[in-house]
This record gives sequence, structure tokens and C-alpha cells, in this order.
Amino acid sequence: MNAQRDYDALVSQGLKLDLTRGKPSPRQLALSDAMLTLPSSYVARNGMDGRNYGDLQGLAELRELFGPLLQAPAEQLVVGGNSSLAIMHDTVVHALLGGVPGGAERWVEAGEITFLCPVPGYDRHFTICERFGIKMVAVPMTAGGPDMDVVERLAASDAGVKGMWCVPKYSNPSGISYSAETVRRLASMRTAAPDFRIFWDNAYAVHHLTGTHDEIADILALCAEHGNPDRAFVFGSTSKVTWAGSGVSFFGGSPANVEWFLHQTSKQSIGPDKVNQLRHVEFLRDADGVAAHMRAHAAIVRPKFEVVDRILAKELADVATWTSPRGGYFIALEVPHARRVVELAKAAGIALTPAGATHPYREDPDDRFIRIAPTFPGLEDLEQAMRGLVVCARLAAS
Amino acid sequence: MNAQRDYDALVSQGLKLDLTRGKPSPRQLALSDAMLTLPSSYVARNGMDGRNYGDLQGLAELRELFGPLLQAPAEQLVVGGNSSLAIMHDTVVHALLGGVPGGAERWVEAGEITFLCPVPGYDRHFTICERFGIKMVAVPMTAGGPDMDVVERLAASDAGVKGMWCVPKYSNPSGISYSAETVRRLASMRTAAPDFRIFWDNAYAVHHLTGTHDEIADILALCAEHGNPDRAFVFGSTSKVTWAGSGVSFFGGSPANVEWFLHQTSKQSIGPDKVNQLRHVEFLRDADGVAAHMRAHAAIVRPKFEVVDRILAKELADVATWTSPRGGYFIALEVPHARRVVELAKAAGIALTPAGATHPYREDPDDRFIRIAPTFPGLEDLEQAMRGLVVCARLAAS
Repeated sequence: MNAQRDYDALVSQGLKLDLTRGKPSPRQLALSDAMLTLPSSYVARNGMDGRNYGDLQGLAELRELFGPLLQAPAEQLVVGGNSSLAIMHDTVVHALLGGVPGGAERWVEAGEITFLCPVPGYDRHFTICERFGIKMVAVPMTAGGPDMDVVERLAASDAGVKGMWCVPKYSNPSGISYSAETVRRLASMRTAAPDFRIFWDNAYAVHHLTGTHDEIADILALCAEHGNPDRAFVFGSTSKVTWAGSGVSFFGGSPANVEWFLHQTSKQSIGPDKVNQLRHVEFLRDADGVAAHMRAHAAIVRPKFEVVDRILAKELADVATWTSPRGGYFIALEVPHARRVVELAKAAGIALTPAGATHPYREDPDDRFIRIAPTFPGLEDLEQAMRGLVVCARLAAS
Repeated sequence: MNAQRDYDALVSQGLKLDLTRGKPSPRQLALSDAMLTLPSSYVARNGMDGRNYGDLQGLAELRELFGPLLQAPAEQLVVGGNSSLAIMHDTVVHALLGGVPGGAERWVEAGEITFLCPVPGYDRHFTICERFGIKMVAVPMTAGGPDMDVVERLAASDAGVKGMWCVPKYSNPSGISYSAETVRRLASMRTAAPDFRIFWDNAYAVHHLTGTHDEIADILALCAEHGNPDRAFVFGSTSKVTWAGSGVSFFGGSPANVEWFLHQTSKQSIGPDKVNQLRHVEFLRDADGVAAHMRAHAAIVRPKFEVVDRILAKELADVATWTSPRGGYFIALEVPHARRVVELAKAAGIALTPAGATHPYREDPDDRFIRIAPTFPGLEDLEQAMRGLVVCARLAAS
């Protein structure tokens, strides 16, 4: 058997390669090393001492910089700590323990509640639901985003359907961006729950890889236009703009949602790290500064996506399909017996995100999705890992 | 009336002074300005790239530095973001929504739960309880900490008594440090709830103002020794060591509590801001570095405490009592008609922490406590504010 022989040869190489998590590579991180000696001043534009307590909403100059990029007015944006995941987690906590605007009760008292989860999706979203006993219902992705016929039916049918996870641009892991029609339907659809919330995780808002930029419709504006102003919570961060561990995060929403979020947050913190906010403003400067910085990222990342695409196209086109995103951090590979492929790869020293991680409860019913995260390894390691992955996929398919 | 005439004269000065919050002064913040251009390297001692994701527990070198200062073994310490208040808030959330080790249920399902609150105490602790509907029962402070006869009786009598707030050293706002006997009784007392927790907010662990350092008994060691290893959650931060908005915070506890905390936190974040951790390690260096840094703080802060003490002793000894702490950030003034004093001061342009803030539900039954926060204003402003406060207290008492 050719496939077995190839696999045995692969194992004998004793590789140690990692395609698991969407981490920036050291070369990408180095693009922000000027921040090591910033800010040059601790004084905010309004004269506030950035070193001291206060300013729960975050510096206006930073909110003005990221407002247009996240499609939220600066006054409807809040700057958080180093993790947008933490803001999402805490937003769910606030809803569970305090309810949300327009809701009649705290979610913890609302009986069984359900979130809609487009699949393939982001495992850490699912983990938050699982931790809090929030039921997850998978919704298939189409080329234009989640299947809206399914979403509309589920959201309208059950007042226990309180939320939905969305990564609307360069989605994790498919790289798909939601069509204007999808966003319009999300904003306008009827929901049985008056306090239904879309968790709009715009993690890859500025993470273009090519000259053709995906742009998505303005969820906050559309929700307001369709009489559902409080429907969407918007999230974003600079974790994959500046430094993965030391960026800033954002919460955006309607005026009522922002007031609610700040009220909840006021019990939790006296204020964010404003020195890091000043550091970011001084380093990124303005929208042009962000765009130039993201082009430098793309110059490092794009060749890696191309390697993946090239190897898959050459070696696996007969048994697999995959996405070729114009941005973001991931490629979704669909291949028979995904779980077996990941096991084989592991035994050959190639770490992949566990098969199933793309689905609620880690259950991919067709056992076919593998999330490929090509950013962290160097080009040679990536090429070697992908060639190994091909061998594993061939053996599993045989 | 002399008092009324003095007050009218005070009002006519049109002052604008603020003694409300325990904020470091700009001179104190400037002590850490070397951090503006740190760290010089983003590489942790173990070789980890501090700029990237990961290391949920925080850098070992920082945990080793602060472990002895917070009386927690480095391996039983976790480093968090810029706010220990956020860690305390989130710890309550984790207990509500996930239960704690040794507990039979999530606190949200435990019926009415109660926290013991030594008074005078810290308003933001009370706010966390109030937000989550946790009942608060006030416990009077003595010269050696909370009245342990009361604490022991309440803790043993009701399984709904799940927690207790403690600021054990240079307490907010009295400046009292718990005696060894108090700590021993806290560690060894019988509690009706098997999952009772002491929230040990050691906010002023290294914040000595004089050469005579208050030291407190080791709560974690004593709890373990008395067969209650999981009883205490320890909290601390550098908010009043380096920068109030841009420090690092700590969670400490038994191995089981630390494992529990990290498990909960793993759903919330991919890791803390390690660049800021490296910044702190490089700047503070070691325990001697911290001690020298805190002596520089004390040189700025001590004269302010002395001004307060001197003016009160000279002008108000006949109607008021107050504490003369050897550390921390606050002085607790006891004076008749505290609420009226604060109102009068406000009308004269002197902002004080609202009377009652030192008590659960903002209800000081004797209407006598005022928290004085002398650190932020300059010496002249402070002197003027204190002289104004004396005038207000005299008028209220007359």
C-alpha cells in the first residue's frame, strides 16, 4: 500500500510541528517592537494622567481610531483589557447574572437557553456556552455566512434562543465573510426572545491578506434601522494587530447596550490599562497606520496561506475541499475521516487542532472538518507539516 | 455662632478639593516612569515569547518576586490583569456560576447567601455583593481586626454564610492590621458552610509608611495547618506600587483553589499581558527593589498622613476620634453626624467619600465614619481641605 508506506516514512522522520492555534509568528510580533519603548507620554489627549485610575470607557483617541474599523461610533465603543475573549465571556456572565436591556429576567433564571452556533466555528465560543450550560445548536455555514433560513426559523421558534455567535469577516475557521444579505437578515429577522443577542466577534476586521478586501455590512446600523437597535454586541481586539498577549480589546453596541456594559463593568474594575492604550495610539496613529501595519502582516502571512493552498491543490484535490480566504487566520479543510487524520498526524509529530473542535460539543457529525492555522510556523516547517498532513489524509481516505 | 461664621467664611473661599478616592499622587506615579521604556526584552526567563498568547498562570519570575510579599508560594500564585478588583469580582462570579472546591452546588443555586463584612470596610467589596444579591452582614472592627466572637458565631450558625471580606493589613479604611490571634481564629474556626471562603484582599501588603512594619500571620499556612486548606482566596496587586491603572494583580490560594481558578480562567482568557509582567519584573527586580520603591512612596505619603493627624489632633480631638495607621491609604475618622459633615464639605467645595460608603448598603447605623484619602492632593491642598473638614465637623457637632 502506497499510502501506508508514505505514512511510515513520514513517521520515521520524527517531526515536531504545530498547526494548532492561530498564533502570530515571531516575525509578525516583531512588527510592533517599537511599542517596547512607548508611550513617550502618559498624558491622554484630554489631559488625563494615563498612569492613574479611571476612564472606564477607554481613551477617546483610541476609540476614534478603531470605531470606523469595527463599524461602531467611537462613543459606542468601550476599550477593555488584553483579551476580547474575556469581554465576550464577561458579557455572557453579565447577561446571566444581570440580564440585558430589553430582557424580562436574568438569563440564569430564564430556564434552558440556547445559542446558535454557525459551523464550522470557533471552539472558544463554544467553551463559554458549555461552561455555563448554554445549549448550542449548530447552523451550517454557506458561502455567504450562516444558513439564514435555518437561523430565522430557530430564532423565531423559541424564546429560549437568546444568542448567536458570529465571526462575520474572514470567519474562524472558514475564512468566509458574511454577505450583505446575511447581515441584513440577521438585523431584521423576528426573534421569539425580546432580549436576543448577536455576539458579533469581528476578530479579523482589518486582517486582509490580499489587495481585495472583504467588507461586511454595518450590523449596528442595520439593527437600528430595522427597529432592533440593541440586538448586536460587537467585539474586536488588536491581539492579531500588535501583540497577541498585550493588545487592547473592544466592546461596541447601541447606546443602551454600552450604558449597560459600562454599568456592569463598573462593579468589576476601576478602569482599563490606559498606558497600553496610549502605547497603541502612538504606535498605530490612525487608520492609515493600521492599514500599513496590516499590509506588513499580510506580506508575512499570505505566502503561508499560499503554501497550504498550493499543496492541497496539488496533492489532495481528489479527496478534499478547502477554503482559500482573502483574510483572517485559518483555512477550513474538509476531508474524510478527519478524526483519523488528526490522530495519524499526531502520531507522526504534527499537532493539529483536534477534529471536532470546529463544532459544539466537539461533535462534527460528518467527521470532516480540520482547522488549519498556518501563521505561526516558518514557511519550511509549514510546507513539511502540510506534506505530512497530505500523507495522513491519503492514508485515512484509503 | 462661631461654627456657622467659620463655615460661611469657608464657603466663601470657593474651594475645589478632593479627598474621595485612594489614588496615588502624580509624584508617586512618577516613581515608576522608568517603566515607560521597559521591558528591554520580551523574552521570559524560561525562553517564552512574552508578546504572544499563553501562560495563563503568569511568569514564574514575577510570581517568585511577589509570592513572599503576599505570603503565597509562587506555584500557588496566579498573575492577572491590571485590577485585583476584577479578580475578586470574577472569583465571586466563578463561585456563583461554577461553585468552589468543597462545595456541593454552585452558589447561584445555594439559596440566600451571605458575606460577612467587617466595618468600616471597602465600598467596592460591598458593591460586588450588592450587584449579585449577596446579603451582607456587618461585623465591627476591633483594634486587632474583625470582632472574632461575632465572626465565629455567624460563620458557624448558617450554611448560607459563604464568604467574608478581609483587608488584613493596613485595612481600608481604618489602617488596622489583623492580629496573629485574629488570623488564627479565622483559619481555624468552624463554619457551617463547607465551602466558606475568606476573600483576603491584601491590597496594602508592602505599603508601609513608617519604619515600624505591621506584619500579619500567614493565612494560607494557618488554614492548611488547621485542616481548612481551601478556606482563603488571597488577592493583591501593584496598583499602588507601580501605576494605578497599569499594574498587575494576583490571585493566591491552596493548590485546589489555584487549579480551580485556572480552570475557570481558561474559559475566559488565553493568557495575561506578559509584556507588562516583564516590565514589572525588570523594574522592581526583587524584594529589596520593592522595599526601596515603597520607601520612596512612603516619603511622599507619610507627610500627608501627618498633616491629617496633626490637624485632627489640634482641632477636633474633643468631638472626634480617628486612626493613625502605619501604612495603607486611608484614615478612618469617627465624628458625629458624618453625613451632615460630608454634605457641608461638599457645599464648601471639598469632596469626601460619601458617608456610609464604609458600610454595607451604605448604611452606617451610627452615622459617624468618614474615610479620609490623603494621598492624591498636594500637601497644601490637603491641609486646606482638612481645615475645611474641621470647620464642617464643628458646625455639624454644634
